[in-house]
Amino acid sequence: MASSCIFCKIIKGQIPSMKIFESDKTLAFLDIGPLSKGHSLIIPKYHGAKLHDIPDDQLAEVLSVTKKIAIAQGIQDYNVLQNNGRIAHQEVDHVHFHLIPKPNESEGLGIIWQTQDADKGALSKLLEDIKSKM
Amino acid sequence: MASSCIFCKIIKGQIPSMKIFESDKTLAFLDIGPLSKGHSLIIPKYHGAKLHDIPDDQLAEVLSVTKKIAIAQGIQDYNVLQNNGRIAHQEVDHVHFHLIPKPNESEGLGIIWQTQDADKGALSKLLEDIKSKM
Ligand SMILES: [Zn+2]
Ligand SMILES: [Zn+2]
Repeated sequence: MASSCIFCKIIKGQIPSMKIFESDKTLAFLDIGPLSKGHSLIIPKYHGAKLHDIPDDQLAEVLSVTKKIAIAQGIQDYNVLQNNGRIAHQEVDHVHFHLIPKPNESEGLGIIWQTQDADKGALSKLLEDIKSKM
Repeated sequence: MASSCIFCKIIKGQIPSMKIFESDKTLAFLDIGPLSKGHSLIIPKYHGAKLHDIPDDQLAEVLSVTKKIAIAQGIQDYNVLQNNGRIAHQEVDHVHFHLIPKPNESEGLGIIWQTQDADKGALSKLLEDIKSKM
């Protein structure tokens, strides 16, 4: 728990939230600044800024809760997004997964997908480098 | 397994891939059309088009493998994205999680974040509706 973290305050009940689901490890609530109707946040209760800061067992329920909320909403088109770092659009430094319904082109998450030319040799070298560190 | 699915073919070894990690349930490989250096895909081996089609136990390792790859790459800024539906930018109909490093403004995932005015009454009604279906 971090005393200045807005999501830790929500977990402790010091700030109200529109709670959808709660268990020992996981909390889910509506985003009050939604990109689309039903935009929800799913968070581990364990405080950590970035995904790689959270122990595996504290993440165990995140995707199943995300699924449950998608099914409860009856949505077919949606994005699941987890941002790490200001430059990657993270605004609160407590890991959170966005479930963002995509009902039409103008609502929901907007994505800019600018692929790079991938040199096979460079990719192979990168692959060996990553594998050596796994 | 779906015979026409390109990711099922990668799983079966019928199409080559730049494999980073493999276990009984999970496969991870480099995206050959990357948004940034290190752009990786993490997939359950279980075939299903959308997140809500995949049984919980088949998703159990996805986030821990995603973490492992982020740590192996030594990245601090990145997005984790899983798209459902063409309108939500899904291109292959086998659930996949993108791990996309965000090294600078011009590379990686581009995000357009257009929030909506959230009426508290409408949100409360929506919340009750979702909770009743959980
Ligand atoms: Zn926190
Ligand atoms: Zn498949």
